[in-house]
Amino acid sequence: MNTFGHIFRVTSFGESHGPAIGGVIDGMPAGIEVDENFLQCEMARRRPGQSDLTTQRQEADNVELLSGVFEGKTTGTPIGFLVRNTSQHSADYDNLRRIFRPSHADYTYQTKYGLRDHRGGGRSSARETITRVVGGAFAKMALRQLGITVQAYTSQVGDIKLKHDYKAYNLKLAEYNAVRCPDQVKAQEMANLINAMRLEGDTVGGVISCVVKGCPAGLGEPVAGKLGLGFAGAAGRGSEQNDAFVPDGASRITTASNNSGGIQGGISNGQDIYFRVAFKPVATLLREQRTVDMDGNAVDFKAKGRHDPCVLPRAVPVVEAMTAMVILDNYLLNKTTHL
Amino acid sequence: MNTFGHIFRVTSFGESHGPAIGGVIDGMPAGIEVDENFLQCEMARRRPGQSDLTTQRQEADNVELLSGVFEGKTTGTPIGFLVRNTSQHSADYDNLRRIFRPSHADYTYQTKYGLRDHRGGGRSSARETITRVVGGAFAKMALRQLGITVQAYTSQVGDIKLKHDYKAYNLKLAEYNAVRCPDQVKAQEMANLINAMRLEGDTVGGVISCVVKGCPAGLGEPVAGKLGLGFAGAAGRGSEQNDAFVPDGASRITTASNNSGGIQGGISNGQDIYFRVAFKPVATLLREQRTVDMDGNAVDFKAKGRHDPCVLPRAVPVVEAMTAMVILDNYLLNKTTHL
Amino acid sequence: MNTFGHIFRVTSFGESHGPAIGGVIDGMPAGIEVDENFLQCEMARRRPGQSDLTTQRQEADNVELLSGVFEGKTTGTPIGFLVRNTSQHSADYDNLRRIFRPSHADYTYQTKYGLRDHRGGGRSSARETITRVVGGAFAKMALRQLGITVQAYTSQVGDIKLKHDYKAYNLKLAEYNAVRCPDQVKAQEMANLINAMRLEGDTVGGVISCVVKGCPAGLGEPVAGKLGLGFAGAAGRGSEQNDAFVPDGASRITTASNNSGGIQGGISNGQDIYFRVAFKPVATLLREQRTVDMDGNAVDFKAKGRHDPCVLPRAVPVVEAMTAMVILDNYLLNKTTHL
Amino acid sequence: MNTFGHIFRVTSFGESHGPAIGGVIDGMPAGIEVDENFLQCEMARRRPGQSDLTTQRQEADNVELLSGVFEGKTTGTPIGFLVRNTSQHSADYDNLRRIFRPSHADYTYQTKYGLRDHRGGGRSSARETITRVVGGAFAKMALRQLGITVQAYTSQVGDIKLKHDYKAYNLKLAEYNAVRCPDQVKAQEMANLINAMRLEGDTVGGVISCVVKGCPAGLGEPVAGKLGLGFAGAAGRGSEQNDAFVPDGASRITTASNNSGGIQGGISNGQDIYFRVAFKPVATLLREQRTVDMDGNAVDFKAKGRHDPCVLPRAVPVVEAMTAMVILDNYLLNKTTHL
Repeated sequence: MNTFGHIFRVTSFGESHGPAIGGVIDGMPAGIEVDENFLQCEMARRRPGQSDLTTQRQEADNVELLSGVFEGKTTGTPIGFLVRNTSQHSADYDNLRRIFRPSHADYTYQTKYGLRDHRGGGRSSARETITRVVGGAFAKMALRQLGITVQAYTSQVGDIKLKHDYKAYNLKLAEYNAVRCPDQVKAQEMANLINAMRLEGDTVGGVISCVVKGCPAGLGEPVAGKLGLGFAGAAGRGSEQNDAFVPDGASRITTASNNSGGIQGGISNGQDIYFRVAFKPVATLLREQRTVDMDGNAVDFKAKGRHDPCVLPRAVPVVEAMTAMVILDNYLLNKTTHL
Repeated sequence: MNTFGHIFRVTSFGESHGPAIGGVIDGMPAGIEVDENFLQCEMARRRPGQSDLTTQRQEADNVELLSGVFEGKTTGTPIGFLVRNTSQHSADYDNLRRIFRPSHADYTYQTKYGLRDHRGGGRSSARETITRVVGGAFAKMALRQLGITVQAYTSQVGDIKLKHDYKAYNLKLAEYNAVRCPDQVKAQEMANLINAMRLEGDTVGGVISCVVKGCPAGLGEPVAGKLGLGFAGAAGRGSEQNDAFVPDGASRITTASNNSGGIQGGISNGQDIYFRVAFKPVATLLREQRTVDMDGNAVDFKAKGRHDPCVLPRAVPVVEAMTAMVILDNYLLNKTTHL
Repeated sequence: MNTFGHIFRVTSFGESHGPAIGGVIDGMPAGIEVDENFLQCEMARRRPGQSDLTTQRQEADNVELLSGVFEGKTTGTPIGFLVRNTSQHSADYDNLRRIFRPSHADYTYQTKYGLRDHRGGGRSSARETITRVVGGAFAKMALRQLGITVQAYTSQVGDIKLKHDYKAYNLKLAEYNAVRCPDQVKAQEMANLINAMRLEGDTVGGVISCVVKGCPAGLGEPVAGKLGLGFAGAAGRGSEQNDAFVPDGASRITTASNNSGGIQGGISNGQDIYFRVAFKPVATLLREQRTVDMDGNAVDFKAKGRHDPCVLPRAVPVVEAMTAMVILDNYLLNKTTHL
Repeated sequence: MNTFGHIFRVTSFGESHGPAIGGVIDGMPAGIEVDENFLQCEMARRRPGQSDLTTQRQEADNVELLSGVFEGKTTGTPIGFLVRNTSQHSADYDNLRRIFRPSHADYTYQTKYGLRDHRGGGRSSARETITRVVGGAFAKMALRQLGITVQAYTSQVGDIKLKHDYKAYNLKLAEYNAVRCPDQVKAQEMANLINAMRLEGDTVGGVISCVVKGCPAGLGEPVAGKLGLGFAGAAGRGSEQNDAFVPDGASRITTASNNSGGIQGGISNGQDIYFRVAFKPVATLLREQRTVDMDGNAVDFKAKGRHDPCVLPRAVPVVEAMTAMVILDNYLLNKTTHL
């Protein structure tokens, strides 16, 4: 199952060391202006080698559009696209052909499918997120016409955290540093931590926060297609956490705290949608680790090649892209609620 | 969208104050023995009025099976079922017809659909979880034949938390107290907190933990149907968190820490699957709250009727049910990975 | 798989001799007035015993609505419904427990599922079409607001055929005779043939024609969700069959012949949609037939009970219902083609 | 909606005059040997220019596989593929930019989407069937391992028909003539008719028949995923058409007539599956036709370029491909009927 979405659907394919990564965007609304420059900028935010905090692999990641666009506009037919894999050093992975790396998908893919492309994680590579960024860029082109914006930023790396929620920051500043954190001081601390990890051959996780502004009330499908939030508030009381409605002039309604994060009963309530996504540390360490090979023998191994010590900076556009696709999908789906 | 699952699919219907709650289970494997006694026991774990910690509404919640079962076995055809709503005091909600309760779905339903059944939350009522418990009971009947068990328990209420993960407890003890916590001392503290909340007209949230044992490796769909975990580990390092593979005799492989929670790359690895689910405090307080009515005027209101001060005890079987459905669905889906 | 449709979806359950037949309508637009009288009239058109041409089983087939309707309007939430099975003479089928009736689904169900409810065809009974008539009645309630009508009629029974297509007849007359044929003379011939079949213990097939009027252009999904037509025209030439466009004043466009039946490239073109559905003769004969039992032995058997010698008269509302559901589903889906 | 299938799913993209046609095959079983030579042969059966009966466009239609294959075997991950469009004479279509050709999809696409790629039919071009042939070739590679074969052939062109059903012919002979008809005399008549049509600038339709051999009983989903047949038999009687079961030694069961075409109640019964598909005449004539332009004015136009006078010869592999995909999809789905 490699298809996301109900109306706006992205089907992806590709392994990190095969010929290409790509996909099909189906259900894109017709008549939307295609901004190829914007698409390529979104790709640049995700691509390797963009700063000294990320892997030094250099991949241009140019997107080739194969269909669904005519004279600069979407036609409503499916948009096929692909990105060639050009900077693959497959030999870096020769020693992994028969080894199951810890906390990677090597063992589970081998067990599930009976065989696997061992080079660079194959299908389980983070390179698969290219398809999400492409899908997200098209979703953003449509959302832009609706006045809906999606912005994510790094709010935690290791134990370095932003103190406040999104309202305390000028989120545009997030793109001014390599970590993609809107607080420049914290950003520097996070960068220092990531660099320290790199020097130790270690890795670190974190949290990305995401805000959707301008989303109308009424999106989301109660029961099986809920928009939703997370762990915040498990420890609290109803009297502290309830999100009171307050009049907002001109018969509009707003809420006092937005503790609901813009979602109530799985449906958007017109407030900013706000949520966080946790990332575990990257599993690939540049130091020796103990593991097991395909014959069940204990072995030592050490990863070769060029890897991210922290995935957060490059994951920010991926979180935005996934969010944009979900919002557009629900926007379209909600149009069917009434005749 | 009121259908869960891909192969094993449950479609639900029903409002809390309509004639009935029910649904259709489609994709149930054929030839499974139907244990109606077990089904009714699962319902009893979810039903209101089972202890002094829960709402005092008394609902028998008897499940009527309408199809798909013949001479005590599933036939492979869809299983229709329903539970009549019998103890509804709809008049308790008359004052809510034009009011949007804070942190409820009243406003979002009204905005999305243009009208709503205001009685008892209508479709957004927790009573909808009946359909999940029924679906989960059938899933468990199938999983039982595969040696797969699912057990959930309350691991946190408000700020009272279990100190250890599931391996430190005898989980069977969870069903010996009204909170469904396997540590009897903590269970008593949790019960005291819930009762204190009730006396104050307040509510409290918490966390449910869930363990799946006996699940074979290979279940889960990478990319768009991933089994998955959560927030734990955002702060840590790869060198601490990687889940080393170790030989386990007889060419089996196990992992040292199970930090992966039994899932790697979205696919089960044969270890125990372990995850947590957070619940916010119940939104219905038995004290006066400020809110807004349908005309945009600020109003005070106070809920009437019989409500749960904490949903956790009754949510434990719901978490198990959802989990059982997901595992069975992925088990069946995984059969299609090979010819 | 017991769900039809993409946006407007009907999931059905039920065996002919179980407790009930029913289903869930999901994706019904909100705010549509529910005409229960109309619903019951549609059921009456399908029910057994309505004339001497159909089976003499007497089933009231009252529909009970369980959810999704509030104060006379649809709420946008799923509509659960059921029809109790009340007139089942299960003993009529005792002799069929171990026999595979020719051209029935007994053998295929047994082979597929390993067991089956042998009473009255179980899940494969035509009684399952109840759920389609209910779904279709709700679809018609929505289509009515859009000015779209669906009408089917019997155009062939055995070798007795209407000479012309739908434009030659006053289709309202179809409901004035038991066969549901708009030509009263042909209707009488068809009725005579059906009665002759009954006396011989034999059965006969036929063709139902269906017309959709008022359907806007643009419905249908090219490629995988095409609206479509049929076998007519395999023998002809392009120069005879092409359906020329002609100006129609006020910048409207119409076609000269409607040879396309209202569909071009899988999409409605604004002309009447017109198609035919063939029905094979009912497989249940009231005479002795040779077949095989579950042990592979040749045996003779004779059906007992009350059966239709011709299914066409009762299938007319089923064809309409299926059509109405498809049109509404495509109408809703088409709303997502543009932002 | 550009995705076919439930488990084995093919998502397609591409316009005839865009950069490429392609798609994603998702749900392909793992570990199947990939026969690229066979794939290219299947493409050659569909491609233009293969005989003087078809369009003289010369397109190599080489398939590039982009993922999902590793060391000669399928990996169970999605297979991305594309075929470049190389022989497009887009200028041939300049005169069609503002014209709606009769019985084409120009008008319906324009109405549905508000814009369209007018060159060569765009998305509605028969060139889209490339994706089906690729999907079908992979399905056949899997079916081959199960001993299931699919063969189609031309059984009618215009009013020239084969007299008998498939059992009367050596179907292998179908590939020995350009029409793909197993009766060489009829094939010559059909070829003569097609050539006559070409000379007149006219076109002709026909019927393709298809046989599936070796399909086990039990495939197909009753109710919403039925395998199914067609119009044959509307005129007959049950006593003539019922398909009697007969013992077949060794506790196997067969049927006497296979009037059911291998399908009963929507499920395969282990007999040969046999059905026919009708094709209307190609809509593009090489003679002047009257139609309407985008301003609603009546205009005359004449198609330019290279077109098929009869689509049947090239549609035979497409019918096989669609059938192979449906059979494999149902084979995989049926594996989930039991634990």
